[in-house]
Amino acid sequence: MPKVEFHFDFGSPNAYLAHRVLPGVSARTGVAFDYVPVLLGGVFKLTGNRSPFESLKGIRNKLEYEQLEIRRFVRRHDIADFAINPHFPVNTLMIMRAAIAAEFEGVFARYVEVVFRHLWVEGSKMDDPAVVAQALRRSGLDGDRLLARAQEAPVKDKLLRNTEESVARGTFGSPTFFVDEAIFFGKDRLDAVEAEIRDAGGRAGA
Amino acid sequence: MPKVEFHFDFGSPNAYLAHRVLPGVSARTGVAFDYVPVLLGGVFKLTGNRSPFESLKGIRNKLEYEQLEIRRFVRRHDIADFAINPHFPVNTLMIMRAAIAAEFEGVFARYVEVVFRHLWVEGSKMDDPAVVAQALRRSGLDGDRLLARAQEAPVKDKLLRNTEESVARGTFGSPTFFVDEAIFFGKDRLDAVEAEIRDAGGRAGA
Repeated sequence: MPKVEFHFDFGSPNAYLAHRVLPGVSARTGVAFDYVPVLLGGVFKLTGNRSPFESLKGIRNKLEYEQLEIRRFVRRHDIADFAINPHFPVNTLMIMRAAIAAEFEGVFARYVEVVFRHLWVEGSKMDDPAVVAQALRRSGLDGDRLLARAQEAPVKDKLLRNTEESVARGTFGSPTFFVDEAIFFGKDRLDAVEAEIRDAGGRAGA
Repeated sequence: MPKVEFHFDFGSPNAYLAHRVLPGVSARTGVAFDYVPVLLGGVFKLTGNRSPFESLKGIRNKLEYEQLEIRRFVRRHDIADFAINPHFPVNTLMIMRAAIAAEFEGVFARYVEVVFRHLWVEGSKMDDPAVVAQALRRSGLDGDRLLARAQEAPVKDKLLRNTEESVARGTFGSPTFFVDEAIFFGKDRLDAVEAEIRDAGGRAGA
């Protein structure tokens, strides 16, 4: 079976949309995605890339097209509750570090679900520590502890290392997928990701 | 049956690669693509967009990824003879105008085939009038006549009008596809184009 990875930053709506679709890919192929938090701001600094919402500004038709493709993806995958965050773009440094803290604390999957939902369904202002702590608490996570650990050096270092290693393997944006060492960028490559998993020995799907 | 259009500039390698795949889409759906010459330089001027080979310059990993996706597309569709033109980027104003002249002369399909092949298989310098005239002559087309007509006002006007109308409908690059008024950008949307054709009443495929 291939090793498959999902390199993501919570701040990317396309990462959230991919996150919603990955369980189906896993169900069809029998392969679980390894979620790897990668700080998009760091990726941009290391590569010289910029977010689409910056680089497309002032270019006629192109941002509208990206938005059309988001609507198509949402419709195709029946993601009824997705909503662009009213505070977008949200600075994700704190919640990305806290994702590493959640790994260290053994509550990663739950943390990822809660933070993604707060950003892309509930529209919470997730660069505000008080908002984040409350969101985590309400979902049964120890928000204060996770935010405190997010400030510790091993946590910060791990996020930096994830980011640097991802860029060294070819990443320039979010979401990025790896099937073993084969790289795929963007939610719109998920069909290709699934095909690659099958070619690499995952189960043939329905 | 939906009206399907392929808006292209010869200078785009991705337009050529799409051109190689469209006959299969037509065979499976029963719908022929209407080829619409659209000057990419004009699209960029009207939208403020730039070619990927310009905008990706200096961004780590991104151009390499685009090239990887070209290799994947070539392999998936078994396009054995594709080669990046050694004179790339080629100024396409002359050959795009002559495409309109070829429409007026009733030799459009043959002209498109010859010019695409010379650019993306044979590596000819297709912004040199002598090279173009010879390439057309060797393929049984009246190169001198087409290049002369390419200078006429109605031909120039038609290319400009195509370009302006395409941008008004949402175009910002090449290749762009329309299935009735639904727009799709890039060779990597061809699966979505095919699905849209079926939804819009084309034949269900094999």
